[in-house]
Amino acid sequence: MNVLTLLDYASVLVFALTGALVASRAQLDLVGFAFVACLTAVGGGTVRDLLLDRNPVFWVGEPTYILIATGAALVVFFTAHLMESRYRWLVWLDSFALSIAVAAGTGVALSLQQPPVVVVLMGMSTGCMGGLMRDVVVGEVPLVLKQGELYVSCALAGSVCAVIGTGLGLPTLWALLACASVCWVLRAGSLLFGWRLPVYKGRPPRV
Amino acid sequence: MNVLTLLDYASVLVFALTGALVASRAQLDLVGFAFVACLTAVGGGTVRDLLLDRNPVFWVGEPTYILIATGAALVVFFTAHLMESRYRWLVWLDSFALSIAVAAGTGVALSLQQPPVVVVLMGMSTGCMGGLMRDVVVGEVPLVLKQGELYVSCALAGSVCAVIGTGLGLPTLWALLACASVCWVLRAGSLLFGWRLPVYKGRPPRV
Amino acid sequence: MNVLTLLDYASVLVFALTGALVASRAQLDLVGFAFVACLTAVGGGTVRDLLLDRNPVFWVGEPTYILIATGAALVVFFTAHLMESRYRWLVWLDSFALSIAVAAGTGVALSLQQPPVVVVLMGMSTGCMGGLMRDVVVGEVPLVLKQGELYVSCALAGSVCAVIGTGLGLPTLWALLACASVCWVLRAGSLLFGWRLPVYKGRPPRV
Repeated sequence: MNVLTLLDYASVLVFALTGALVASRAQLDLVGFAFVACLTAVGGGTVRDLLLDRNPVFWVGEPTYILIATGAALVVFFTAHLMESRYRWLVWLDSFALSIAVAAGTGVALSLQQPPVVVVLMGMSTGCMGGLMRDVVVGEVPLVLKQGELYVSCALAGSVCAVIGTGLGLPTLWALLACASVCWVLRAGSLLFGWRLPVYKGRPPRV
Repeated sequence: MNVLTLLDYASVLVFALTGALVASRAQLDLVGFAFVACLTAVGGGTVRDLLLDRNPVFWVGEPTYILIATGAALVVFFTAHLMESRYRWLVWLDSFALSIAVAAGTGVALSLQQPPVVVVLMGMSTGCMGGLMRDVVVGEVPLVLKQGELYVSCALAGSVCAVIGTGLGLPTLWALLACASVCWVLRAGSLLFGWRLPVYKGRPPRV
Repeated sequence: MNVLTLLDYASVLVFALTGALVASRAQLDLVGFAFVACLTAVGGGTVRDLLLDRNPVFWVGEPTYILIATGAALVVFFTAHLMESRYRWLVWLDSFALSIAVAAGTGVALSLQQPPVVVVLMGMSTGCMGGLMRDVVVGEVPLVLKQGELYVSCALAGSVCAVIGTGLGLPTLWALLACASVCWVLRAGSLLFGWRLPVYKGRPPRV
């Protein structure tokens, strides 16, 4: 199993956990847990594969991904009540899922020799789209667009690092490691220390 | 016309009716009715075809589908005021559309010799995605994720039946009939008698 | 550069401006501006290309589109506070973006010799999907479905004009110009003079 497949597996697992946590906040049943978990887990990678015309879509070719996501949903269904704060778990697991998925998307696009802009965009889409679908479907405010937090920016920074790294001759493995690390450190810094970019402050919208 | 095409036509027709009913609840104009009807009608099958890389997407190759969906929107536009309770019509038509679409998605995936997990997922996507898009776009709580009702579970059960059936040597037609019946009976039971799976009950989310 | 590419560039630019304006209303940071701008700018065309199986998707093959959208986001980030009414800018820019994108989608489908119904639908999808994604993601009421305004109808009318025009032997360039003009005039008439189609008026929904 190569590193790209490994990254896909890891991001599916962790994103599925976040999906199931969101399902628990929406008080869904077991199959609802599995549904949201699968959507979140494979959403970003599916967008990536459709955009890059990879065939078959990663989880259609290898259904183990779905079994992993379903297993993760099951585990959360029976253990979520043990968690001190499900929202903290959600946000932190999501930060790991984001970082891994950004590396997964970046790695796939690099392996297909896409131009740098496309590599960065595939990293960002793979990282952000799963969580975005999760939140839109359940009707929560998307974490991706939460005010005053870094999120898309972390994906962007991580992916750019990987592109620069491979441009400088770094082996892919190291470049993707740097990508995930930079992404996660920025996201964690944003969550812990309130790191942020200046936000647009106009007058409030008049509708 | 084979059975798969017939199922696609039937699910397009019934889903279009539900889309138009949702449009009537949002008080849209005639073209808005047609838009939501078409989105609902072809949404699930489009996801299926993109994921399985079927080419062309079913309604792009055969625009009659769109004419049917538009016709259904027209009929609802001029008759919805006659309905005693549009919401009941919506929910029940949606239960038929779900069942037919699950069979349609399952059948296509079976005919492409996909592995069982993929077959089940295609059945579920085809069944659930159209209605999900409809509700997200119009801003209603998705029927798919309504608390305390079976929905995705019905799709899952129906599709699993078809997979087991064909595995046991049942002709496709019978397997798909079983699929649609199981899906619909479960959904109807949920609507009429409150059948449900245990729901996750944790403390309320703290946000 | 031919006219189809030019239309794609123009619609990307103008839709990106609308995306950034919506981001300003949601008080996002700079990267959030770029994200929503890119999603809006390429959303409709991406749907069109996936449905028609055009390969690669237009902005994956030519990343300049993304740079344009990002540039537009930057400009809006630093100038939106100068605008008298951001909502008016949004609505009017959106009307131009809609008209150009409808022509772009119609043109591509015509150039692929699709049947008339598909041409019209591609025009409508390209025109409406970007704005729909923008509004759903940020959680605003979609402009597309705003009550008592023409929107999808404009896209429909414009695209039908182009189909009739080319059917009558009009050169593509003129047909697409007619398409964009009809679409824009209808939309502008709806915004300025309240042109509309009869809206469905039933009893209010009983939930």
